[in-house]
This record gives sequence, structure tokens and C-alpha cells, in this order.
Amino acid sequence: MTDRLTVDVSLDQGRAYSILIGRGLLDEAGVRIASLGARAAVIVSDSNVAALYADRLRTSLEAAGLRSGLVTVAPGEASKSYATYAEVCDGLLAHKVERGDIVVALGGGVVGDLAGFAAATLRRGVRFVQAPTSLLAQVDSSVGGKTGINSPLGKNLIGAFHQPRLVLADTATLDTLSEREMRAGYAEVAKYGLIGDAAFFDWCEAHWAGIFSGGPERDEAVAICCRSKAGVVVRDEREDGERALLNLGHTFGHALERLTGYDSDRLVHGEGVAIGLALAFRFSARLGLCPGQDAGRVANHLALAGLPTSLAAVPGGCGDADALLDAMAQDKKVRDGALTFILARGIGQSFIAPGIDAAEVRAFLTDELLAG
Amino acid sequence: MTDRLTVDVSLDQGRAYSILIGRGLLDEAGVRIASLGARAAVIVSDSNVAALYADRLRTSLEAAGLRSGLVTVAPGEASKSYATYAEVCDGLLAHKVERGDIVVALGGGVVGDLAGFAAATLRRGVRFVQAPTSLLAQVDSSVGGKTGINSPLGKNLIGAFHQPRLVLADTATLDTLSEREMRAGYAEVAKYGLIGDAAFFDWCEAHWAGIFSGGPERDEAVAICCRSKAGVVVRDEREDGERALLNLGHTFGHALERLTGYDSDRLVHGEGVAIGLALAFRFSARLGLCPGQDAGRVANHLALAGLPTSLAAVPGGCGDADALLDAMAQDKKVRDGALTFILARGIGQSFIAPGIDAAEVRAFLTDELLAG
Repeated sequence: MTDRLTVDVSLDQGRAYSILIGRGLLDEAGVRIASLGARAAVIVSDSNVAALYADRLRTSLEAAGLRSGLVTVAPGEASKSYATYAEVCDGLLAHKVERGDIVVALGGGVVGDLAGFAAATLRRGVRFVQAPTSLLAQVDSSVGGKTGINSPLGKNLIGAFHQPRLVLADTATLDTLSEREMRAGYAEVAKYGLIGDAAFFDWCEAHWAGIFSGGPERDEAVAICCRSKAGVVVRDEREDGERALLNLGHTFGHALERLTGYDSDRLVHGEGVAIGLALAFRFSARLGLCPGQDAGRVANHLALAGLPTSLAAVPGGCGDADALLDAMAQDKKVRDGALTFILARGIGQSFIAPGIDAAEVRAFLTDELLAG
Repeated sequence: MTDRLTVDVSLDQGRAYSILIGRGLLDEAGVRIASLGARAAVIVSDSNVAALYADRLRTSLEAAGLRSGLVTVAPGEASKSYATYAEVCDGLLAHKVERGDIVVALGGGVVGDLAGFAAATLRRGVRFVQAPTSLLAQVDSSVGGKTGINSPLGKNLIGAFHQPRLVLADTATLDTLSEREMRAGYAEVAKYGLIGDAAFFDWCEAHWAGIFSGGPERDEAVAICCRSKAGVVVRDEREDGERALLNLGHTFGHALERLTGYDSDRLVHGEGVAIGLALAFRFSARLGLCPGQDAGRVANHLALAGLPTSLAAVPGGCGDADALLDAMAQDKKVRDGALTFILARGIGQSFIAPGIDAAEVRAFLTDELLAG
């Protein structure tokens, strides 16, 4: 096996793990998973991804002496439901997954969250491996141990912290992503620069096209993002503090997803995040926290990459300022009725801003809606 | 507040908690839960227990300044299902349980397991308090952090380790238990003596009637059992070793529950355990590990307390030896096809016996069935 770009997530208590990044990693999955000491590895995937990659992954697992199996769910956010969670758990049990065995999540963020939660709770916890096949999953959701499903009362309200034992980010799988999914994932890439790494945002401005086309920039960007996220997770696994910075753009973004009924034809997560990033910077500028030119630079770059950056870009609209505010107040990060935002003093200088006055937010959103 | 019998569960990382034991503790619940620093405490209970105790508990919570709420499920093992789990989670969310709030499990083992699992996974984990109202829950299931539900493929196959922050065992609530439930719980009491405390088994033989009648022996027995379980849990929280001893009688018992379709009209958990304890000692004697007189003493004492001690006592029968063996082999504690039992070298001298030959078990069960 070739050496691979590696990011170590240095958690304690035997929970440290590696993120491997590179083209063709799926074909090495068997050997690498077998080295964790398992007997069986059962894959959870969605029908789209399974059709593309499940056979290759199973061949690799079986060649390494692992018994393999496959549990398939429907693609899309609707699979992060109680009902599909039960189907996945029972499917894994039907494949006789025992305590020492491994669940492999093969797919994007939905599959990773769902399979991870099933692994976290099957027999009170079995090990799992993330094999993310979307850019969003490779740079964000596959790292850090947040797993879960949606309740009818809100997104990601049911779940567990359950760290993977290994992340295999085969960047060649991104070749089969649609342009739209690629762009949506790119919003999360740019986010890492905006949170705390201005130099990486500069680099993104210069090299983003290589990430999309699959050049070496892609692997490099995934590694930089994973290293950034791994650092945050190690310092604040349970989001008691710093980890909340990763939600930059997400308070607005989640509200937009909610108001568009989680209808991916209208808006996917990364698009909501892109609009949310642009809004977070413009709101920061309005509050006098951040130079207006930084807010402009953020919106310009996201737009150049083909991402939406304003409320007017939401297909079918997103309601008025009060509807947006209500949708934000349901966010689980709201405490005691006060609104907490992640704001910025500039590119790469984000911070947690608790106790933001709802009236300020309403006025900002009203102006944004008028601006069109 | 009066001083209460207290057992400390000395876990690390801020997860240490106390078990308080005594009559009337429900009326102190508010003050004691408020001292954990919560704003709201939402109760999960079943309709039988809620009718008896929910108002008192809510009055106590509200008097201590806590916002309270109540989510009710149907009584019985059938509520440990995916569907009821979803209902409980959504019910807690509808009561606006936030990360800093507390879920209170008010009821027997079913409610504790179900509410604990909901708490473990709601918003990726909120705190919970056990207020067990059955003897079985007070001496066993409310302590140690095992939470979960059943899958159609087996019992307790879905769950999480999630320690309570406090256990309030109001022993006066046992006054409203049926004789049958009381007896079933008593099987778990006797189990602690049989596992590792011969002196406690002696004490049980002398004082069991006081446990049933609600004398001071009841509180004392609950405290001794909790102290015993707490010690095991602290040493082996995740059941990598010693904790498996708590399954004495349970491999047989779970198989009998499975074969009677988890129909509590036929067999409740504690009755399965009582038969399982008698079988574990007779099997140990048959293997030459344990004096036959100890096996006799175990069966005699359980029978004196009104518990079943043989396969013939299962209403409607339990199938033949192969059916029993199959039901045991599905138990999640089976590894690599080998049968692991908890056996004993005498009263108070249990041990983990891996690799027990299935043929030996089959022959033993066949003779047990013939003996009638």
C-alpha cells in the first residue's frame, strides 16, 4: 500500500483514530479495516452510492478475510428518520453484527450520520469506519463523532457522540458527484478558512478550481480541512465551547433548510451554509465588528464557485424576517431564549457571540430581504 | 430533609452519582434534582405508575422551582420498542427539554431502560435521574447506566451506556407492587448473594419476609444490592469482564423469556431469572463444580419466596432442549458460537465460564425437562 495523506485525531482513552485521504483508498479498505482486528464488516450505504462503490468495497473487505454485508437505504435526508434508523439496526443485526464487528458507513453525510448512530447504539455500541463519498462528508461530517437522525421536531435532535475508528476519504469518489453537490461541499471547505485560517482562504481563492477538477489541490484541501476540524474536536469534543465555531453560517443555514422543508430540490445543506456564511459576515459588518470589504470578499468568492449568497437566491423564497427568526430560535444551540451566533471580526477571525438581540437580527434580515 | 441511606457510584470524569434509598424520597425529589442545577425536569412514566405517583413527583419538582412535564407510555415490555422510543423522544422535545434539563424515569425497569435511552440520545445526551418504583428496578436496572430497547431480533439489542446523575429509590413505592412483581424483583436480590456474598444470602434466608412486608430490612436489602452492583459497575462499566457476573441466571432466563414470547402473563423477567439461578446452580453441580447441597439450598429458598425454579414451572411450556439452546445462542453475550455461562463453585462463588460445550448444555436441559 502506498503512503497516504494522514490526519490524526488525537483523542484519549484509546479513541484516537486516523483520517486517510487519497485517490483509490476504497481498494485498500479491506486491509486497513482488517488491521483493526475485526471479523466482519457490514456496510451501510444509500442505493445511489452502493450501485457505484459497494461491490468494490466488499471485494476489498472479503479479500482481506473479512465477512462482509450490505444494508442499503434510500438516498436523501428523509432517511435520517426513526423508521430508517430501525431498519438499519435490524439490517445490521440480520447480518449478525456482533460486538467485535465493524459497521462501515459508505456515502455522504446522511449515511454517515445514520450509520454512525446505528453503530453507536447497536448492542450499546459497536465500532464504525467512515468511508465518506461526498466532499461535504470528507471535510466535515465524517470527522468528529457527531452522529444522529432527525425528529419531526427538528434536525439532528436525536443522536450520539460516537467516534469512528478510521476515516477513509477516497477523493476519487468525488469524481462522480454532481456539480451541485461538489459546490455544496465546497461551502464547508471555504468555511474552515473563514473560521480561523485566513491563509487557507487566500489559498482557496487561488486554487478552488483544482479542488473541483480533482487535482492534487483536492487532497490537500481535504487534509487541511480535516486537520482543522480534528484540532477543534480534540480540544472540545462535546461542543462545550470552541467546537461551536464550526457552526459558522449554520444558524442562518439551518433556518433556511427548515423553511424550505428540507427539500433538496430547493436547497441543500451546503447551499444553506453558503448563504449563511455570507449573511454571518454581512451581519458582522453591520454590527461594526468586521470590515465590509471582508464581507464582500466572502460573498464574491462563494458566488465565483457557483454558490448562492443571499436570501433572494432561495428558490421559492424563505418567508419574512419573523419566519426566519422563529426558525432560528428552534435551533438547539439557542439557550434561554437568547440567540447565539458565530460572528467574525474578519476573514479567519470568527468567534462565539452569545446574547445577540433578536431585534438586531430582525432588522438585518428585513434589510437583506429588501435588498433582494 | 432527613439523612438517607446512600450508596455512591464512584465513576470518574464527573460522572459519579449517588443512590438514595428510603421511604418517602419522592417528596424530596424536587430539592434533590434542583441541586443538580437544572431548570426543567420532565418525567417519563407508564400509565399505571403515573396514576399513582406522577402528581406527587411533579408537585415536588415544581415546589423546588423546576418546570416539570410528563410523558406517559403504555405499561409493559412492549413499550421498549423503536416506536415508543420515538414517541418518548418527541414527547420530551415537545416539552422543550434542552441540553441543561433533566429527564426523570419514574417506573420499573421498562421505563428506566426506555427513558434512559431517550435521555442518552436526545440532543446527543441529556442528564437523567432514575426514580425506580419496582424492586427489580431499585436493586438492578436503575443502577449502572445500561439503557435500551428491544429489536424484533432480540431483547436489549439497541441501547447506550448512559449513567444517571442520581437514583432516588423510594422504597415506599414498593407497597403498591403486586405480590408477583415483588417476588420477581426478589430474584434479583437473592442473585447478589449468590454471585459473591454468601453472608448476604444467609441474611436473605433469615430476613426475606421483612423485605416483602416493607420493614427496615427492605431498605437495608436495597442498599446492599446497590452497593454490590455499584462496585461491579465502577470496576467494569462496559462489561468487558466482571460485570458479566451480574448475568448469573440470565442466560437461561433470557432464553425462557424469548420462548414465552416476552408474554408477561406467562413469565416475567424475574421469574425467568429465578428459574435461571436454580438451573445455573444445578448445572454447576452437574459439572462437578459446585456442591449439590448448595444447588438445593438455592432452589429451596427461591421456592419459599414463591418463585419458580424449574423448566416445568413455565406456563405453557418452553419447548425442547434444542429450542432452549437456540434461544440461548441468540443471546448477545455469545461470542464466536461458543456458549458463555455464569456458573458457581458454591453460594457466593460465581465465575464466568466461557467455551461451555453445547452438547453438555443440551444433555443437562434434556434431563431437566424429563425431571419435570
